[in-house]
Amino acid sequence: MPIGIFDSGVGGLTVYSSIDRALPNSDIYYLGDTARVPYGNKSKETIVRYSLECASFLFENFKIDILVVACNTASSHAVDILKNYLSIPVIGVVEPGVEQALKVTKNGKIGVIGTYATIRSKSYKKNLLEKNKDVEVYQKPCPLFVPLVEEGLLEHPVTFIMIEEYLQEIVDKGIDTLILGCTHYPLLKESIKRVYPHLEIVDSSEVIVEKLKELNPLKEKGIRRVFVTDHSPAFIKLENLILSGVKVEKIELSEVCKI
Amino acid sequence: MPIGIFDSGVGGLTVYSSIDRALPNSDIYYLGDTARVPYGNKSKETIVRYSLECASFLFENFKIDILVVACNTASSHAVDILKNYLSIPVIGVVEPGVEQALKVTKNGKIGVIGTYATIRSKSYKKNLLEKNKDVEVYQKPCPLFVPLVEEGLLEHPVTFIMIEEYLQEIVDKGIDTLILGCTHYPLLKESIKRVYPHLEIVDSSEVIVEKLKELNPLKEKGIRRVFVTDHSPAFIKLENLILSGVKVEKIELSEVCKI
Repeated sequence: MPIGIFDSGVGGLTVYSSIDRALPNSDIYYLGDTARVPYGNKSKETIVRYSLECASFLFENFKIDILVVACNTASSHAVDILKNYLSIPVIGVVEPGVEQALKVTKNGKIGVIGTYATIRSKSYKKNLLEKNKDVEVYQKPCPLFVPLVEEGLLEHPVTFIMIEEYLQEIVDKGIDTLILGCTHYPLLKESIKRVYPHLEIVDSSEVIVEKLKELNPLKEKGIRRVFVTDHSPAFIKLENLILSGVKVEKIELSEVCKI
Repeated sequence: MPIGIFDSGVGGLTVYSSIDRALPNSDIYYLGDTARVPYGNKSKETIVRYSLECASFLFENFKIDILVVACNTASSHAVDILKNYLSIPVIGVVEPGVEQALKVTKNGKIGVIGTYATIRSKSYKKNLLEKNKDVEVYQKPCPLFVPLVEEGLLEHPVTFIMIEEYLQEIVDKGIDTLILGCTHYPLLKESIKRVYPHLEIVDSSEVIVEKLKELNPLKEKGIRRVFVTDHSPAFIKLENLILSGVKVEKIELSEVCKI
Protein backbone atom coordinates (compact mmCIF):
# COMPACT_ATOMS: atom_id res chain seq x y z
CA MET A 1 0.00 0.00 0.00
CA PRO A 2 2.37 2.81 -1.11
CA ILE A 3 1.23 6.18 0.23
CA GLY A 4 1.90 9.40 -1.70
CA ILE A 5 1.92 12.74 0.10
CA PHE A 6 2.36 16.14 -1.43
CA ASP A 7 2.52 19.65 -0.03
CA SER A 8 3.45 23.04 -1.41
CA GLY A 9 6.60 23.03 0.69
CA VAL A 10 7.91 22.11 4.09
CA GLY A 11 4.65 22.32 6.10
CA GLY A 12 3.55 18.85 5.05
CA LEU A 13 6.61 17.32 6.68
CA THR A 14 4.60 17.36 9.93
CA VAL A 15 2.02 15.15 8.20
CA TYR A 16 4.83 12.96 6.78
CA SER A 17 6.27 12.59 10.24
CA SER A 18 2.95 11.53 11.82
CA ILE A 19 2.32 8.95 9.09
CA ASP A 20 5.93 7.73 9.24
CA ARG A 21 5.57 6.97 12.95
CA ALA A 22 2.08 5.51 12.78
CA LEU A 23 2.62 3.29 9.72
CA PRO A 24 6.24 2.12 9.76
CA ASN A 25 5.51 -0.73 7.34
CA SER A 26 3.96 1.34 4.57
CA ASP A 27 5.98 2.78 1.68
CA ILE A 28 5.82 6.56 1.79
CA TYR A 29 6.66 8.98 -1.05
CA TYR A 30 6.67 12.66 -0.17
CA LEU A 31 6.84 15.56 -2.64
CA GLY A 32 7.34 19.17 -1.52
CA ASP A 33 6.84 21.67 -4.35
CA THR A 34 9.43 24.00 -2.82
CA ALA A 35 10.29 25.67 -6.14
CA ARG A 36 6.79 27.18 -6.33
CA VAL A 37 5.88 27.52 -2.66
CA PRO A 38 3.67 29.11 -1.31
CA TYR A 39 0.34 28.19 -2.90
CA GLY A 40 -1.74 30.20 -0.40
CA ASN A 41 -1.66 33.53 -2.20
CA LYS A 42 -2.11 32.18 -5.74
CA SER A 43 -5.23 31.83 -7.90
CA LYS A 44 -7.46 28.75 -7.93
CA GLU A 45 -6.49 27.95 -11.52
CA THR A 46 -2.78 27.85 -10.70
CA ILE A 47 -3.32 25.89 -7.46
CA VAL A 48 -5.29 23.23 -9.36
CA ARG A 49 -2.63 22.95 -12.11
CA TYR A 50 0.20 22.59 -9.59
CA SER A 51 -1.76 19.99 -7.59
CA LEU A 52 -2.38 17.90 -10.72
CA GLU A 53 1.32 18.03 -11.59
CA CYS A 54 2.36 16.92 -8.08
CA ALA A 55 -0.20 14.10 -8.00
CA SER A 56 0.80 13.02 -11.50
CA PHE A 57 4.47 12.72 -10.46
CA LEU A 58 3.64 10.48 -7.48
CA PHE A 59 1.06 8.40 -9.34
CA GLU A 60 3.07 7.77 -12.50
CA ASN A 61 6.37 7.00 -10.78
CA PHE A 62 5.40 5.04 -7.70
CA LYS A 63 2.01 3.49 -8.39
CA ILE A 64 0.74 4.90 -5.10
CA ASP A 65 -2.45 3.36 -3.73
CA ILE A 66 -3.51 6.36 -1.72
CA LEU A 67 -2.84 10.08 -2.04
CA VAL A 68 -2.66 12.45 0.92
CA VAL A 69 -2.94 16.12 0.02
CA ALA A 70 -1.13 17.60 3.03
CA CYS A 71 -1.54 21.21 1.92
CA ASN A 72 -4.73 22.93 3.04
CA THR A 73 -4.73 25.30 0.08
CA ALA A 74 -4.44 22.41 -2.40
CA SER A 75 -6.99 20.37 -0.41
CA SER A 76 -9.44 23.25 -0.50
CA HIS A 77 -9.23 23.79 -4.25
CA ALA A 78 -8.16 20.55 -5.84
CA VAL A 79 -9.25 17.46 -3.86
CA ASP A 80 -12.51 17.00 -5.75
CA ILE A 81 -10.73 17.41 -9.10
CA LEU A 82 -8.02 14.93 -8.05
CA LYS A 83 -10.70 12.43 -7.00
CA ASN A 84 -12.20 12.72 -10.49
CA TYR A 85 -8.89 12.07 -12.25
CA LEU A 86 -7.41 9.39 -10.00
CA SER A 87 -8.67 5.87 -9.47
CA ILE A 88 -7.33 5.71 -5.90
CA PRO A 89 -8.52 7.21 -2.59
CA VAL A 90 -7.56 10.86 -2.13
CA ILE A 91 -7.44 12.21 1.42
CA GLY A 92 -7.32 15.95 1.89
CA VAL A 93 -6.86 17.72 5.20
CA VAL A 94 -10.25 19.45 5.15
CA GLU A 95 -12.63 16.53 5.83
CA PRO A 96 -10.67 15.02 8.74
CA GLY A 97 -10.42 18.47 10.35
CA VAL A 98 -14.14 19.05 9.90
CA GLU A 99 -15.10 15.69 11.43
CA GLN A 100 -12.86 16.28 14.42
CA ALA A 101 -14.21 19.81 14.98
CA LEU A 102 -17.80 18.58 14.93
CA LYS A 103 -16.84 15.92 17.48
CA VAL A 104 -15.26 18.33 19.99
CA THR A 105 -17.41 21.47 19.76
CA LYS A 106 -19.91 21.89 22.59
CA ASN A 107 -21.68 25.07 21.54
CA GLY A 108 -21.56 24.53 17.75
CA LYS A 109 -19.54 27.71 17.14
CA ILE A 110 -16.41 26.89 15.15
CA GLY A 111 -13.57 29.13 13.97
CA VAL A 112 -11.44 28.37 10.90
CA ILE A 113 -8.09 30.00 10.15
CA GLY A 114 -5.94 29.54 7.04
CA THR A 115 -4.29 31.20 4.04
CA TYR A 116 -6.19 33.63 1.83
CA ALA A 117 -6.78 30.92 -0.77
CA THR A 118 -8.12 28.41 1.77
CA ILE A 119 -10.48 30.90 3.38
CA ARG A 120 -11.62 32.26 0.00
CA SER A 121 -12.50 28.72 -1.11
CA LYS A 122 -14.87 28.37 1.91
CA SER A 123 -13.93 24.65 1.83
CA TYR A 124 -14.11 24.21 5.62
CA LYS A 125 -17.27 26.27 5.99
CA LYS A 126 -19.15 24.40 3.24
CA ASN A 127 -18.02 21.02 4.54
CA LEU A 128 -18.99 21.86 8.13
CA LEU A 129 -22.45 23.07 7.09
CA GLU A 130 -23.03 20.04 4.84
CA LYS A 131 -22.43 17.73 7.78
CA ASN A 132 -24.33 19.85 10.32
CA LYS A 133 -26.42 22.75 9.13
CA ASP A 134 -26.86 24.10 12.65
CA VAL A 135 -23.23 25.02 13.37
CA GLU A 136 -22.01 28.60 13.15
CA VAL A 137 -18.71 29.03 11.29
CA TYR A 138 -16.39 32.05 11.54
CA GLN A 139 -13.47 32.24 9.12
CA LYS A 140 -10.33 34.38 9.23
CA PRO A 141 -7.29 34.44 6.95
CA CYS A 142 -3.99 34.77 8.88
CA PRO A 143 -1.44 35.43 6.11
CA LEU A 144 1.43 36.43 8.43
CA PHE A 145 1.39 33.15 10.37
CA VAL A 146 3.28 31.22 7.65
CA PRO A 147 6.27 33.62 7.47
CA LEU A 148 6.31 33.89 11.29
CA VAL A 149 6.51 30.09 11.57
CA GLU A 150 9.12 29.85 8.81
CA GLU A 151 11.21 32.41 10.69
CA GLY A 152 10.86 30.35 13.85
CA LEU A 153 9.27 33.29 15.70
CA LEU A 154 6.86 30.97 17.50
CA GLU A 155 6.86 32.86 20.81
CA HIS A 156 8.00 36.28 19.63
CA PRO A 157 6.11 39.41 20.78
CA VAL A 158 4.98 40.13 17.19
CA THR A 159 3.47 36.65 17.00
CA PHE A 160 1.35 37.30 20.09
CA ILE A 161 0.27 40.68 18.70
CA MET A 162 -0.79 39.05 15.41
CA ILE A 163 -2.58 36.16 17.18
CA GLU A 164 -4.76 38.67 19.02
CA GLU A 165 -5.23 40.86 15.97
CA TYR A 166 -6.36 37.95 13.80
CA LEU A 167 -8.31 35.89 16.34
CA GLN A 168 -9.97 38.30 18.80
CA GLU A 169 -12.70 39.07 16.25
CA ILE A 170 -13.79 35.43 15.87
CA VAL A 171 -13.23 34.65 19.55
CA ASP A 172 -15.69 37.47 20.29
CA LYS A 173 -18.31 35.52 18.32
CA GLY A 174 -18.16 32.86 21.04
CA ILE A 175 -16.33 30.04 19.23
CA ASP A 176 -15.22 27.15 21.46
CA THR A 177 -13.31 25.30 18.71
CA LEU A 178 -10.64 26.48 16.27
CA ILE A 179 -9.59 24.56 13.16
CA LEU A 180 -5.96 25.13 12.13
CA GLY A 181 -6.48 25.19 8.37
CA CYS A 182 -2.80 25.32 7.35
CA THR A 183 0.01 22.81 7.91
CA HIS A 184 2.25 25.55 9.34
CA TYR A 185 -0.14 26.52 12.12
CA PRO A 186 0.28 23.51 14.47
CA LEU A 187 3.64 25.04 15.38
CA LEU A 188 1.72 28.03 16.80
CA LYS A 189 -0.68 25.85 18.80
CA GLU A 190 0.99 26.49 22.15
CA SER A 191 1.13 30.25 21.61
CA ILE A 192 -2.54 30.37 20.58
CA LYS A 193 -3.41 28.27 23.65
CA ARG A 194 -1.58 30.75 25.85
CA VAL A 195 -3.73 33.65 24.59
CA TYR A 196 -6.99 31.67 24.37
CA PRO A 197 -6.74 28.72 26.80
CA HIS A 198 -10.45 27.91 26.53
CA LEU A 199 -10.31 26.99 22.81
CA GLU A 200 -10.33 23.40 21.55
CA ILE A 201 -7.72 23.41 18.80
CA VAL A 202 -8.14 21.00 15.89
CA ASP A 203 -5.06 19.92 13.91
CA SER A 204 -6.08 17.87 10.86
CA SER A 205 -2.77 16.05 10.53
CA GLU A 206 -3.47 14.16 13.76
CA VAL A 207 -6.81 12.98 12.41
CA ILE A 208 -5.43 11.91 9.02
CA VAL A 209 -3.22 9.36 10.70
CA GLU A 210 -6.27 7.75 12.28
CA LYS A 211 -7.83 7.47 8.81
CA LEU A 212 -4.72 5.85 7.36
CA LYS A 213 -4.38 3.38 10.23
CA GLU A 214 -7.52 1.66 8.96
CA LEU A 215 -5.39 0.42 6.04
CA ASN A 216 -3.48 -2.85 6.33
CA PRO A 217 0.22 -2.37 5.62
CA LEU A 218 1.69 -5.36 3.81
CA LYS A 219 5.44 -5.07 4.20
CA GLU A 220 7.94 -5.49 6.98
CA LYS A 221 9.69 -2.13 6.74
CA GLY A 222 8.45 0.44 4.31
CA ILE A 223 10.42 2.48 1.81
CA ARG A 224 10.82 6.22 2.47
CA ARG A 225 11.55 8.64 -0.38
CA VAL A 226 11.36 12.43 -0.20
CA PHE A 227 11.38 14.71 -3.26
CA VAL A 228 11.51 18.47 -3.64
CA THR A 229 11.32 20.74 -6.67
CA ASP A 230 13.86 23.09 -5.04
CA HIS A 231 16.33 22.13 -2.37
CA SER A 232 15.67 25.43 -0.64
CA PRO A 233 17.30 26.59 2.59
CA ALA A 234 13.93 26.41 4.40
CA PHE A 235 13.63 22.73 3.53
CA ILE A 236 17.23 21.95 4.42
CA LYS A 237 16.66 23.55 7.84
CA LEU A 238 13.71 21.25 8.60
CA GLU A 239 14.82 18.00 6.96
CA ASN A 240 17.48 17.29 9.56
CA LEU A 241 14.92 17.71 12.32
CA ILE A 242 12.22 15.56 10.78
CA LEU A 243 13.63 13.16 8.21
CA SER A 244 16.29 11.36 10.26
CA GLY A 245 18.47 9.96 7.51
CA VAL A 246 16.09 9.93 4.55
CA LYS A 247 17.94 11.42 1.57
CA VAL A 248 16.15 14.31 -0.13
CA GLU A 249 16.02 14.05 -3.95
CA LYS A 250 15.56 17.07 -6.20
CA ILE A 251 13.35 16.60 -9.24
CA GLU A 252 11.78 18.73 -11.96
CA LEU A 253 8.05 18.39 -12.37
CA SER A 254 6.78 17.66 -15.82
CA GLU A 255 4.18 20.18 -16.87
CA VAL A 256 2.56 17.45 -18.92
CA CYS A 257 -0.04 15.78 -16.74
CA LYS A 258 -0.63 12.16 -17.48
CA ILE A 259 -3.51 11.71 -15.04
CA MET B 1 14.17 50.71 -28.06
CA PRO B 2 11.75 48.21 -26.48
CA ILE B 3 12.49 47.72 -22.78
CA GLY B 4 11.82 44.39 -21.05
CA ILE B 5 11.41 44.24 -17.28
CA PHE B 6 10.91 41.18 -15.17
CA ASP B 7 10.38 40.59 -11.49
CA SER B 8 9.39 37.63 -9.35
CA GLY B 9 6.03 39.24 -8.66
CA VAL B 10 4.39 42.55 -7.91
CA GLY B 11 7.39 44.37 -6.35
CA GLY B 12 8.83 45.30 -9.74
CA LEU B 13 5.71 47.29 -10.58
CA THR B 14 7.34 50.17 -8.70
CA VAL B 15 10.23 49.98 -11.19
CA TYR B 16 7.76 49.68 -14.09
CA SER B 17 5.96 52.74 -12.85
CA SER B 18 9.13 54.87 -12.60
CA ILE B 19 10.24 53.86 -16.11
CA ASP B 20 6.72 54.38 -17.48
CA ARG B 21 6.70 57.98 -16.27
CA ALA B 22 10.28 58.78 -17.20
CA LEU B 23 10.24 57.25 -20.70
CA PRO B 24 6.73 57.64 -22.09
CA ASN B 25 7.92 57.06 -25.66
CA SER B 26 9.63 53.71 -25.10
CA ASP B 27 7.85 50.39 -25.51
CA ILE B 28 7.74 48.58 -22.19
CA TYR B 29 7.09 44.86 -21.64
CA TYR B 30 6.73 43.74 -18.02
CA LEU B 31 6.65 40.15 -16.78
CA GLY B 32 5.78 39.25 -13.17
CA ASP B 33 6.44 35.58 -12.38
CA THR B 34 3.55 35.54 -9.90
CA ALA B 35 2.98 31.79 -10.21
CA ARG B 36 6.36 31.10 -8.62
CA VAL B 37 6.82 34.15 -6.38
CA PRO B 38 8.75 34.64 -4.11
CA TYR B 39 12.30 33.94 -5.32
CA GLY B 40 13.95 35.22 -2.11
CA ASN B 41 13.85 31.97 -0.14
CA LYS B 42 14.79 29.64 -3.02
CA SER B 43 18.14 28.17 -4.06
CA LYS B 44 20.56 29.84 -6.49
CA GLU B 45 20.05 27.09 -9.05
CA THR B 46 16.28 27.60 -9.15
CA ILE B 47 16.59 31.42 -9.17
CA VAL B 48 18.92 31.26 -12.17
CA ARG B 49 16.62 28.88 -14.08
CA TYR B 50 13.55 31.05 -13.45
CA SER B 51 15.45 34.20 -14.47
CA LEU B 52 16.54 32.61 -17.76
CA GLU B 53 12.96 31.56 -18.49
CA CYS B 54 11.62 35.08 -17.81
CA ALA B 55 14.33 36.74 -19.92
CA SER B 56 13.79 34.21 -22.71
CA PHE B 57 10.06 35.02 -22.84
CA LEU B 58 10.70 38.76 -23.20
CA PHE B 59 13.60 38.41 -25.63
CA GLU B 60 12.00 35.86 -27.97
CA ASN B 61 8.59 37.51 -28.14
CA PHE B 62 9.32 41.22 -28.19
CA LYS B 63 12.87 41.64 -29.49
CA ILE B 64 13.67 43.83 -26.48
CA ASP B 65 16.78 45.99 -26.77
CA ILE B 66 17.40 46.27 -23.07
CA LEU B 67 16.53 44.07 -20.11
CA VAL B 68 15.88 45.39 -16.62
CA VAL B 69 16.01 42.77 -13.87
CA ALA B 70 13.79 44.49 -11.31
CA CYS B 71 14.08 41.74 -8.72
CA ASN B 72 17.00 42.03 -6.30
CA THR B 73 17.18 38.29 -5.74
CA ALA B 74 17.36 37.60 -9.50
CA SER B 75 19.80 40.52 -9.98
CA SER B 76 22.06 39.12 -7.28
CA HIS B 77 22.24 35.61 -8.69
CA ALA B 78 21.56 35.83 -12.41
CA VAL B 79 22.62 39.17 -13.96
CA ASP B 80 26.09 37.96 -14.92
CA ILE B 81 24.68 34.79 -16.44
CA LEU B 82 22.04 36.77 -18.36
CA LYS B 83 24.74 39.11 -19.67
CA ASN B 84 26.59 36.07 -20.99
CA TYR B 85 23.55 34.68 -22.80
CA LEU B 86 22.00 37.88 -24.14
CA SER B 87 23.43 40.20 -26.77
CA ILE B 88 21.71 43.27 -25.28
CA PRO B 89 22.43 45.41 -22.20
CA VAL B 90 21.17 43.89 -18.96
CA ILE B 91 20.57 46.25 -16.03
CA GLY B 92 20.14 44.74 -12.59
CA VAL B 93 19.22 46.68 -9.47
CA VAL B 94 22.47 45.97 -7.63
CA GLU B 95 24.93 48.19 -9.53
CA PRO B 96 22.77 51.34 -9.61
CA GLY B 97 22.12 50.94 -5.87
CA VAL B 98 25.81 50.51 -5.16
CA GLU B 99 26.80 53.59 -7.19
CA GLN B 100 24.20 55.71 -5.44
CA ALA B 101 25.25 54.48 -1.98
CA LEU B 102 28.90 55.30 -2.66
CA LYS B 103 27.82 58.77 -3.77
CA VAL B 104 25.81 59.60 -0.63
CA THR B 105 27.77 57.95 2.18
CA LYS B 106 29.92 60.32 4.23
CA ASN B 107 31.60 57.92 6.64
CA GLY B 108 31.91 54.94 4.27
CA LYS B 109 29.79 52.66 6.49
CA ILE B 110 26.97 51.17 4.44
CA GLY B 111 24.14 48.84 5.46
CA VAL B 112 22.43 46.46 3.03
CA ILE B 113 19.09 44.76 3.69
CA GLY B 114 17.34 42.19 1.50
CA THR B 115 15.93 38.67 1.26
CA TYR B 116 17.90 35.64 2.45
CA ALA B 117 18.96 34.83 -1.11
CA THR B 118 20.16 38.37 -1.86
CA ILE B 119 22.16 38.64 1.36
CA ARG B 120 23.58 35.11 0.96
CA SER B 121 24.82 36.02 -2.53
CA LYS B 122 26.83 38.96 -1.06
CA SER B 123 26.17 40.71 -4.39
CA TYR B 124 25.94 44.20 -2.87
CA LYS B 125 28.89 43.67 -0.57
CA LYS B 126 31.18 42.39 -3.34
CA ASN B 127 30.12 45.13 -5.73
CA LEU B 128 30.64 47.86 -3.11
CA LEU B 129 34.11 46.59 -2.22
CA GLU B 130 35.12 46.23 -5.87
CA LYS B 131 34.33 49.90 -6.45
CA ASN B 132 35.82 51.13 -3.16
CA LYS B 133 37.83 48.76 -1.04
CA ASP B 134 37.78 51.13 1.94
CA VAL B 135 34.05 51.04 2.70
CA GLU B 136 32.63 48.95 5.52
CA VAL B 137 29.55 46.91 4.60
CA TYR B 138 27.04 45.46 7.06
CA GLN B 139 24.41 43.08 5.68
CA LYS B 140 21.16 41.89 7.23
CA PRO B 141 18.38 39.70 5.80
CA CYS B 142 14.88 40.98 6.69
CA PRO B 143 12.60 38.12 5.59
CA LEU B 144 9.44 39.41 7.29
CA PHE B 145 9.47 42.75 5.45
CA VAL B 146 8.01 41.27 2.23
CA PRO B 147 4.93 39.72 3.87
CA LEU B 148 4.44 42.85 6.00
CA VAL B 149 4.44 45.01 2.85
CA GLU B 150 2.20 42.59 0.98
CA GLU B 151 -0.27 42.77 3.89
CA GLY B 152 -0.13 46.57 3.75
CA LEU B 153 1.05 46.76 7.38
CA LEU B 154 3.39 49.64 6.54
CA GLU B 155 2.89 51.51 9.82
CA HIS B 156 1.68 48.69 12.04
CA PRO B 157 3.23 48.22 15.52
CA VAL B 158 4.70 44.84 14.48
CA THR B 159 6.44 46.52 11.55
CA PHE B 160 8.17 48.99 13.87
CA ILE B 161 9.17 46.16 16.22
CA MET B 162 10.69 44.23 13.30
CA ILE B 163 12.46 47.31 11.90
CA GLU B 164 14.25 47.75 15.22
CA GLU B 165 14.91 44.06 15.60
CA TYR B 166 16.48 43.75 12.16
CA LEU B 167 18.24 47.11 11.87
CA GLN B 168 19.48 48.08 15.34
CA GLU B 169 22.42 45.70 15.04
CA ILE B 170 23.76 47.28 11.84
CA VAL B 171 22.85 50.81 12.95
CA ASP B 172 25.03 50.18 16.03
CA LYS B 173 27.96 49.63 13.64
CA GLY B 174 27.69 53.29 12.70
CA ILE B 175 26.24 53.09 9.16
CA ASP B 176 25.06 56.38 7.66
CA THR B 177 23.61 54.84 4.49
CA LEU B 178 21.16 51.97 4.01
CA ILE B 179 20.60 50.21 0.68
CA LEU B 180 17.07 48.80 0.26
CA GLY B 181 17.99 45.56 -1.51
CA CYS B 182 14.46 44.41 -2.31
CA THR B 183 11.77 45.98 -4.50
CA HIS B 184 9.22 45.67 -1.70
CA TYR B 185 11.22 47.72 0.79
CA PRO B 186 10.74 51.23 -0.65
CA LEU B 187 7.20 51.03 0.74
CA LEU B 188 8.75 50.85 4.23
CA LYS B 189 11.05 53.82 3.62
CA GLU B 190 8.97 56.27 5.66
CA SER B 191 8.66 53.88 8.61
CA ILE B 192 12.41 53.18 8.60
CA LYS B 193 13.05 56.95 8.41
CA ARG B 194 10.83 57.46 11.45
CA VAL B 195 12.93 55.04 13.55
CA TYR B 196 16.32 56.06 12.11
CA PRO B 197 15.98 59.63 10.75
CA HIS B 198 19.74 60.03 10.33
CA LEU B 199 20.07 57.30 7.67
CA GLU B 200 20.44 58.06 3.95
CA ILE B 201 18.17 55.52 2.30
CA VAL B 202 19.05 54.26 -1.18
CA ASP B 203 16.29 52.91 -3.43
CA SER B 204 17.79 51.40 -6.60
CA SER B 205 14.66 51.84 -8.71
CA GLU B 206 15.11 55.61 -8.65
CA VAL B 207 18.65 55.25 -9.96
CA ILE B 208 17.73 52.80 -12.73
CA VAL B 209 15.52 55.40 -14.34
CA GLU B 210 18.47 57.76 -14.61
CA LYS B 211 20.42 55.01 -16.38
CA LEU B 212 17.60 54.39 -18.85
CA LYS B 213 17.11 58.08 -19.58
CA GLU B 214 20.46 58.07 -21.35
CA LEU B 215 18.75 56.07 -24.12
CA ASN B 216 17.07 57.85 -27.00
CA PRO B 217 13.48 56.76 -27.34
CA LEU B 218 12.38 56.55 -30.95
CA LYS B 219 8.62 56.53 -30.94
CA GLU B 220 5.87 59.01 -30.20
CA LYS B 221 3.93 56.99 -27.63
CA GLY B 222 5.25 53.66 -26.51
CA ILE B 223 3.46 50.36 -26.22
CA ARG B 224 2.74 49.01 -22.72
CA ARG B 225 2.18 45.29 -22.14
CA VAL B 226 2.11 43.54 -18.76
CA PHE B 227 2.28 39.75 -18.34
CA VAL B 228 1.93 37.51 -15.30
CA THR B 229 2.32 33.76 -14.83
CA ASP B 230 -0.54 33.81 -12.30
CA HIS B 231 -3.24 36.44 -12.08
CA SER B 232 -2.98 36.30 -8.29
CA PRO B 233 -5.04 38.37 -5.85
CA ALA B 234 -1.89 40.24 -4.73
CA PHE B 235 -1.26 41.39 -8.30
CA ILE B 236 -4.89 42.30 -8.92
CA LYS B 237 -4.82 44.47 -5.79
CA LEU B 238 -1.83 46.49 -7.06
CA GLU B 239 -2.52 46.63 -10.80
CA ASN B 240 -5.42 49.07 -10.42
CA LEU B 241 -3.22 51.40 -8.40
CA ILE B 242 -0.22 51.35 -10.69
CA LEU B 243 -1.14 50.24 -14.20
CA SER B 244 -3.92 52.75 -15.03
CA GLY B 245 -5.68 50.97 -17.86
CA VAL B 246 -2.98 48.57 -19.07
CA LYS B 247 -4.58 45.14 -19.50
CA VAL B 248 -2.79 42.34 -17.65
CA GLU B 249 -2.21 39.20 -19.77
CA LYS B 250 -1.71 35.77 -18.22
CA ILE B 251 0.85 33.53 -19.90
CA GLU B 252 2.59 30.21 -19.26
CA LEU B 253 6.35 30.27 -19.34
CA SER B 254 8.06 27.78 -21.56
CA GLU B 255 10.58 25.76 -19.62
CA VAL B 256 12.60 25.48 -22.79
CA CYS B 257 15.04 28.37 -22.83
CA LYS B 258 15.96 29.61 -26.27
CA ILE B 259 18.57 32.10 -25.10
